[in-house]
Amino acid sequence: MSQHSQKQDQHSVGIVGAGLVGCVAALAFVSKGYTVTLFEARDDPNNQVERNLRSINLAVSNRGIRTLKEIDENLAEKVLEHVIPMKGRMIHDITGKKQESQIYGLNGECINSIDRAYLNKILLQELKRRNVKVYFQHKLVRLSNMDKHPAIETINSTGEMERFTFDYIIGADGAHSQFRYQLQKFMRMSFAQEYIDMQYIELYIPPDPKKKFAIDANHLHIWPRHDFMLIALPNQDGSFTSTFFSPWSVIESMQTGEEFVQFFAKNFPDALELIGEKPLLEAFEKNPRGSLMQVSAYPYNSPNGKAIIIGDAAHSMVPFYGQGMNCGFEDVRILMDLIDKYGIDTAFIEYSPQRKKDLDAICKLALDNYYEMSSKVTNIWYLAKKKLDYSLGRVFKNKWLPLYTMVSFRDDIPYSKAIEIEKRQTKIVSNVQIGVITSLAIYGVYLAAKLCDKKR
Amino acid sequence: MSQHSQKQDQHSVGIVGAGLVGCVAALAFVSKGYTVTLFEARDDPNNQVERNLRSINLAVSNRGIRTLKEIDENLAEKVLEHVIPMKGRMIHDITGKKQESQIYGLNGECINSIDRAYLNKILLQELKRRNVKVYFQHKLVRLSNMDKHPAIETINSTGEMERFTFDYIIGADGAHSQFRYQLQKFMRMSFAQEYIDMQYIELYIPPDPKKKFAIDANHLHIWPRHDFMLIALPNQDGSFTSTFFSPWSVIESMQTGEEFVQFFAKNFPDALELIGEKPLLEAFEKNPRGSLMQVSAYPYNSPNGKAIIIGDAAHSMVPFYGQGMNCGFEDVRILMDLIDKYGIDTAFIEYSPQRKKDLDAICKLALDNYYEMSSKVTNIWYLAKKKLDYSLGRVFKNKWLPLYTMVSFRDDIPYSKAIEIEKRQTKIVSNVQIGVITSLAIYGVYLAAKLCDKKR
Repeated sequence: MSQHSQKQDQHSVGIVGAGLVGCVAALAFVSKGYTVTLFEARDDPNNQVERNLRSINLAVSNRGIRTLKEIDENLAEKVLEHVIPMKGRMIHDITGKKQESQIYGLNGECINSIDRAYLNKILLQELKRRNVKVYFQHKLVRLSNMDKHPAIETINSTGEMERFTFDYIIGADGAHSQFRYQLQKFMRMSFAQEYIDMQYIELYIPPDPKKKFAIDANHLHIWPRHDFMLIALPNQDGSFTSTFFSPWSVIESMQTGEEFVQFFAKNFPDALELIGEKPLLEAFEKNPRGSLMQVSAYPYNSPNGKAIIIGDAAHSMVPFYGQGMNCGFEDVRILMDLIDKYGIDTAFIEYSPQRKKDLDAICKLALDNYYEMSSKVTNIWYLAKKKLDYSLGRVFKNKWLPLYTMVSFRDDIPYSKAIEIEKRQTKIVSNVQIGVITSLAIYGVYLAAKLCDKKR
Repeated sequence: MSQHSQKQDQHSVGIVGAGLVGCVAALAFVSKGYTVTLFEARDDPNNQVERNLRSINLAVSNRGIRTLKEIDENLAEKVLEHVIPMKGRMIHDITGKKQESQIYGLNGECINSIDRAYLNKILLQELKRRNVKVYFQHKLVRLSNMDKHPAIETINSTGEMERFTFDYIIGADGAHSQFRYQLQKFMRMSFAQEYIDMQYIELYIPPDPKKKFAIDANHLHIWPRHDFMLIALPNQDGSFTSTFFSPWSVIESMQTGEEFVQFFAKNFPDALELIGEKPLLEAFEKNPRGSLMQVSAYPYNSPNGKAIIIGDAAHSMVPFYGQGMNCGFEDVRILMDLIDKYGIDTAFIEYSPQRKKDLDAICKLALDNYYEMSSKVTNIWYLAKKKLDYSLGRVFKNKWLPLYTMVSFRDDIPYSKAIEIEKRQTKIVSNVQIGVITSLAIYGVYLAAKLCDKKR
C-alpha cells in the first residue's frame, strides 16, 4: 500500500465523492485557502460515453445559487448560462387536451432546470482550473487514524491500495455513503434509511422539429394522477427529461412494454404522443427502475471535529421538492459561515446541532410534496387556499410568504423557520376560508329570509 | 482467491457469525439435515485468554430454552446445568441497609443467569461434535452471486481471500452486522440504528470466602437510582457480574477513579463494600465504556428468499428486558417452524411479515423497561399496580397474566400479543385503583359527615 501525506503550512482537506456536493465543497475549501484532494469511486465523467439513466433532472434554485455565488460569482454565472428557467408547474389533465399553468413565485421567480452530468462537468473543470487533484476510480475502503490525521484508504481500478492522510476529511459520497458507514465505526451515530414504496423510470421527450420545445419550455410539466404521476423538465436542446413515478405494485402489474403503452394511452395520452409508442415501449424494457429512499443521520461530525458528512450522505431525500442538491449546497455554505465564525475545528462540531432541525424539516417537506404534486394540485380546496395565499402574498409583500416561495426562493429563511411561518399562515388562511364560508352561509340565510318575507 | 463450493444432495447453508444466535441457528439447520458452514471474524473463544469486559451477563428464559429443547433436549439440559436461577429482583435502597425482594413469576418461575462466553463454548462444542465446520478469523468482506448460489467472500488473518457458495445464507453477526450491510446492496431494506444516551461499565463482585455468595444468589440485584442504576447477576463460582448504567453526562462528569468511588459511597454504599474501593477505582480506569444501541431493519430477507438476517443483526435491543438472546433464539425456532410448514424458500420470505410486529414489540418493551428498572420499581403506584396485577394473576390463573410473566415465561404468547393483553389488563387495574380511591374518598366523607353529626 502506498502512503501519501498532505503536510503543508495550510490545512489539508480530503473529500470523498466528486459528485455535485463534493465538488462544491472542494471549491469552497480551496477558496478559503485549504489544500483539497477529492476521491471518486467512478470514472471521470469526461470519459463516460453512456448516459446515466437514473438522474431525475435537477432544478437549481435560490439556495443552491447563493452557495455558488459566495464561492465565485463567475462560477454561478457560468452555471446559470446553461439552465432553463421554469416559472411554474404546467398541469396536464387526463384527456390530454387541457393544460393549466400554476406560477411558482409571487414576483416571477423561477427554478432552473439543469442536466446533472453537465453541471458536474462544469464543477470538475473549475476544480481542474484551480489545480485541485481529483482521484477518479479511487474507491474508499476504510477510514483510519481518526484521532490525529484522519486517513482515507482507497482501492483503485487495478486493485492497488493507497492511504492518504489529512487534517480534516469530508464525506459527500451520496445516499449509500461508504464514508458514513466507516465513520460509524468511530462514533455513536444514529442513522435511518427508509425506502418509500415508489419506483421511477426515466423517459425522454425529443425536441420538436419545428418549434424546438414540443411543450412550453418554461414550466415543470406534471401529469398528476393521485397514485402515480409523470413529470417532465426541459433541456437546452429542446428535449425534455421525463420521469414516471408510481408505487412498485403499479409498475410490476405490467408485464410488457405494450401494457405500459396502453397504460400511457389511458392516463397520459398527450405524453404518449410526445414520447412516441416505440421509444416508450423500449424505455419500459431497457431503462432501470430507480428506488426512492430517505436517509437521516445524527450527529454529522466525529466528536473530535475531524470528519463530517454533508449532502445526500447525511440527508438523502425524495426528489419532490427539488431541494436535494440545493440543500446539499446550502450545507457547504452553512459550514463555511461557521468556519468564518468559529474556526474549522469548532465549526465541524457546531454544525450538527445547528443544522439538524433544518435538514429534518426539508426531508419531511420533500416527502409531503409527493402528495401535493400527485394529488393536491388538482384539489379545489388546495387551489382556493393557494390562490388566497398568493393574493395575501402580493398584498402584504414580505409579510406574507407562501411555503414554496420560502423554500425555493428565500435562502435567508431556514427550512425549519419556513415550516413555522407556514403553520401560522395556514391557520389564518383556514380561518379566512371558514370566515368566507360562514359569511356566505349567513348571507344565504339572509336572502332566504328576505325571500320568505316577500312571499308573506 | 480460493473457491469453495458446497454441492451435495442436501441443501447447503452458510451462516455468518458464530456467536450465540449463529451457533443455535447452525445446530437447528444441522438437525434438519442441512449441510452447515459457519464463519466468524473473531478467534475461537477456546483460544482466547482475555475476558471480554463488555458482556452484560445473560438471563436465559423460557423462549430461549424452548428453542434449545426443540433442537435437542440434551443440549438444553447441558445448558441448564450451568445456570443460576433468579426468582426475582432484589432492590437495594440508598442507605445500603435495606433489600426488598420482588418475585418475577406467579408460580416460582425463574430467569437463569449464565455467562455468555461459557454458553458460547457449549454451543461450539456441540457443533464440533456434529462435525460442523466453523471458520474462525474469517471476516466477511462481500456477498455476491445473490441470484443463484449466494457467495460469502471472506478475508482471513493472513490476508487470504476466499469465496464460499451456498444454497442459502444467514446473517447472525450482531448489531454492527457486515452481512446486513452487504445484503442492503441487493435489496431495498429499511434500516435504523439509534444510540441511547447511556453507557455501561462492567464491574465485579468477588465470591464471599465464607458464604460463597456475598448477596442472595437467586435474585437479579438492582440499585435503582432513577437517572442511573447498578445491577448484578450471579455466577456459578459465587461471584457476581455487575453493570453500572448511566447517561454519558454522568460518567463523563467524573474525572478520576476516586470520584467514581465517592459516587458509589454516596449512591451504592453496600455495593461499594461488595466490590471494594481499589477494584472499583481500577475498573473505572481500565474497563471500557459500552454504548447502547437499538437496531431495526425490514424486511429481514432478500426478495428471492436466499438470504436472511436474524438475532441482533436484525433487531439489536437494549438489555433491560433480558430478551436479546432469547428473542434471537426464538427467531431460529420461528424460522424452523416456517420451514416445516412451507419449505425453506417460502419460509425465508414468510418470516419477515410474520415476525416484524413481535420484534418491534420487544425492542420497544426493552427500552421502556429501563424506566421500570431504574425508577418505577420504587414507585408506590407502580408497586400497588404490580401487587394487584399479581393478586389477580393468582386468582384468575391463566386468564390474568402480568406482562413480565408473558414476556419471560410464556413462549406460547408472541411479544406483540403480550403487549395487547397487558394494555387491556392495565385499563382494568387502573379502573380498580380509581374505584378503590373513590370508595375510600366516599367513606372518608361519610366518616366526616358522621363526625359532624355527632358534634351537633
